[in-house]
Amino acid sequence: MDIRLLPVKFSRKDLPVGTPVVGMVGGGQLARMTQETAVALGIQLRVLAEGPAVSAAQAVADAPVGDYKDPETVRRFAAECDVVTFDHEHVPTDLLQSLEADGITVHPGPDALVHAQDKAVMRRRLDTFDAPSPAHQVVETPADVEDFAKRVGGFPVILKTTRGGYDGKGVWFVDGPDDAAIGTAFASGVPILAEEKVDFVRELSAIVARSPHGQAVAYPIVESVQKDGICVEVSAPAPGLAPEKAAQAQQTALTIAGELGVVGILAVEMFEARDGRLLVNELAMRPHNTGHWSIDGAITSQFENHLRAVLDLPLGSPAARAPYTVMVNVLGGDVDDMHRGLLHCLARDPALKVHLYGKSVKPGRKVGHVTAYGDDLEDVRERARHAAAYLTGAIDE
Amino acid sequence: MDIRLLPVKFSRKDLPVGTPVVGMVGGGQLARMTQETAVALGIQLRVLAEGPAVSAAQAVADAPVGDYKDPETVRRFAAECDVVTFDHEHVPTDLLQSLEADGITVHPGPDALVHAQDKAVMRRRLDTFDAPSPAHQVVETPADVEDFAKRVGGFPVILKTTRGGYDGKGVWFVDGPDDAAIGTAFASGVPILAEEKVDFVRELSAIVARSPHGQAVAYPIVESVQKDGICVEVSAPAPGLAPEKAAQAQQTALTIAGELGVVGILAVEMFEARDGRLLVNELAMRPHNTGHWSIDGAITSQFENHLRAVLDLPLGSPAARAPYTVMVNVLGGDVDDMHRGLLHCLARDPALKVHLYGKSVKPGRKVGHVTAYGDDLEDVRERARHAAAYLTGAIDE
Repeated sequence: MDIRLLPVKFSRKDLPVGTPVVGMVGGGQLARMTQETAVALGIQLRVLAEGPAVSAAQAVADAPVGDYKDPETVRRFAAECDVVTFDHEHVPTDLLQSLEADGITVHPGPDALVHAQDKAVMRRRLDTFDAPSPAHQVVETPADVEDFAKRVGGFPVILKTTRGGYDGKGVWFVDGPDDAAIGTAFASGVPILAEEKVDFVRELSAIVARSPHGQAVAYPIVESVQKDGICVEVSAPAPGLAPEKAAQAQQTALTIAGELGVVGILAVEMFEARDGRLLVNELAMRPHNTGHWSIDGAITSQFENHLRAVLDLPLGSPAARAPYTVMVNVLGGDVDDMHRGLLHCLARDPALKVHLYGKSVKPGRKVGHVTAYGDDLEDVRERARHAAAYLTGAIDE
Repeated sequence: MDIRLLPVKFSRKDLPVGTPVVGMVGGGQLARMTQETAVALGIQLRVLAEGPAVSAAQAVADAPVGDYKDPETVRRFAAECDVVTFDHEHVPTDLLQSLEADGITVHPGPDALVHAQDKAVMRRRLDTFDAPSPAHQVVETPADVEDFAKRVGGFPVILKTTRGGYDGKGVWFVDGPDDAAIGTAFASGVPILAEEKVDFVRELSAIVARSPHGQAVAYPIVESVQKDGICVEVSAPAPGLAPEKAAQAQQTALTIAGELGVVGILAVEMFEARDGRLLVNELAMRPHNTGHWSIDGAITSQFENHLRAVLDLPLGSPAARAPYTVMVNVLGGDVDDMHRGLLHCLARDPALKVHLYGKSVKPGRKVGHVTAYGDDLEDVRERARHAAAYLTGAIDE
């Protein structure tokens, strides 16, 4: 008998009474990590995958492949779900609006999500309730850029595509009126946002979860280290951050989540400016890289609270379980086999937590992360950094 | 376009270089919970399921349905796995021996697993290295039972089927020579083991993980409460257990794992006798109900260490993360919908960890468990007991 010929699919009626089905658009590592907690909570996670073997498709029972930009595909996908949520923010706003018009529950909804999709819309909206932002202006010509630079005290300034940028893509640092980056930015074909280049001492991230009826929880404020626009290391809580500043950062994120009507996880990336201001840099409305520490480091992970929020279940405690938790991303390097290195890393550190995303190695690609926690920040940091560097082949001892 | 018509299957070559594929025979909640950690570690879990919608089949991408008693089915299943391991102990020993003869890696191997399958073989083997057991004897006639009773100081005694018993099934308490249970036991058609009825103060469980090259770790000794032969509550660590006794119980389990050549998790259920002896009751060679607390309560869960062990990866720390962790099973009661009760339970206790197995409710059936942890045993116990009782409908406030 060929067991591969037997049916492995099941339908909703085969699941226990009351089992919620959450549809996640996108099959990346965020959907994959969401599955870890969905399995625990008895929630059926359905993934609309970019391909049959993408990160999350390897990890869930139900991962139909389809184009998230095709309304009919997303509508068919959503038809078997109680709620639709996202692994990324690239689903067209108008498509989501049409789903809502059809009575499909979408969290976060398009009216909120647009603020994570369009930086100009986000800045405009934040200004209406005086959320602290860097100086900014939508620019249409190189002359506009020069005028903006004068307004903020001269170059350098930053240009960003209002839509479609991520992990440092779609961002340009402009040193002067003749900088070639200006032409490159305008050549991108989407509206361009100019922003003051903030003189910051470090980057912070405030992650909150909010449910439809308005319950919200705020995770400890973390410090994130970015390299070439990619998050490489997160320390929770942000070392040495004054309690009143941490509370201020949490309040800013909670206010934004409430004002924008976010449902699910909201990540607010901030600059801690040298002059002491906390300025909002970017928004993300999904589990975020700066929250991965919470899987092993918090009572309730950001993935669990995202699921609870989109299902309007009571939210879980975001409190940390250890004095310090450090997460370091594993970025593709010279080594193809991420598993061979585990022999060394797991033997060296029996308390290390390793997360691999089922992604083939490409230079700089996020293929996993490692987490260490404990009482001594320096020790915890060294353990996490060593493991990540060893797995990628950057070090060999 | 019909997205359901697109392929959702993938083959090994689509996975990242070095991705291990672990095959688990049986699609129950143990396989389902193993998937939570397999997803994190980038391990591909393949499940040989009893049906298309069983507990683990809902949670993994690759769950062919087939009969684990059919050699050809198991052989085809194993062909695409690096190692085969188990959700239950019912795979025939000779079938596993034939797999090993074919060069298929099976952990635990049949020579070890037989001791968890056959109680007579287990008792005989434990006697060879003086592991502490209750008095025992294979009996073939009612007269043998009477002789055995005389030898251990009279009735009551316990009769057990040597094979196929679980969760209290295949176990009879015999109060005297005329007890009808004697006939029932012999009518079961399998050899019967008679055991002394131990006068115990409580039941303990010692869980260890052992890898092929002999590395082993021992979890804290836990106290388990059984009801009608089913584990209902586990406290970690066992409250008030003297350190030397805990060490003795761990050593007994480590010795058994080494002597029997166990690879993976070994659970040794023990009686703490009123006279102070620690006596081995049962063995299980798979993640065990008395180890579920480790998902939320230990640095490395029993499921992660089982996967690490069968892949011969270095084992993780079994240390507890909190002073006390209590797990209470959610057994099927009057309520069919296990999800509705979450609204109350999660709101009442933001730190509660709920695990649902994707199983429809039947009276007494294990459909999930809840875990609470903290510094105060009584508080932790009350939180876990309340949540389990509420979910099953035993209480409504």
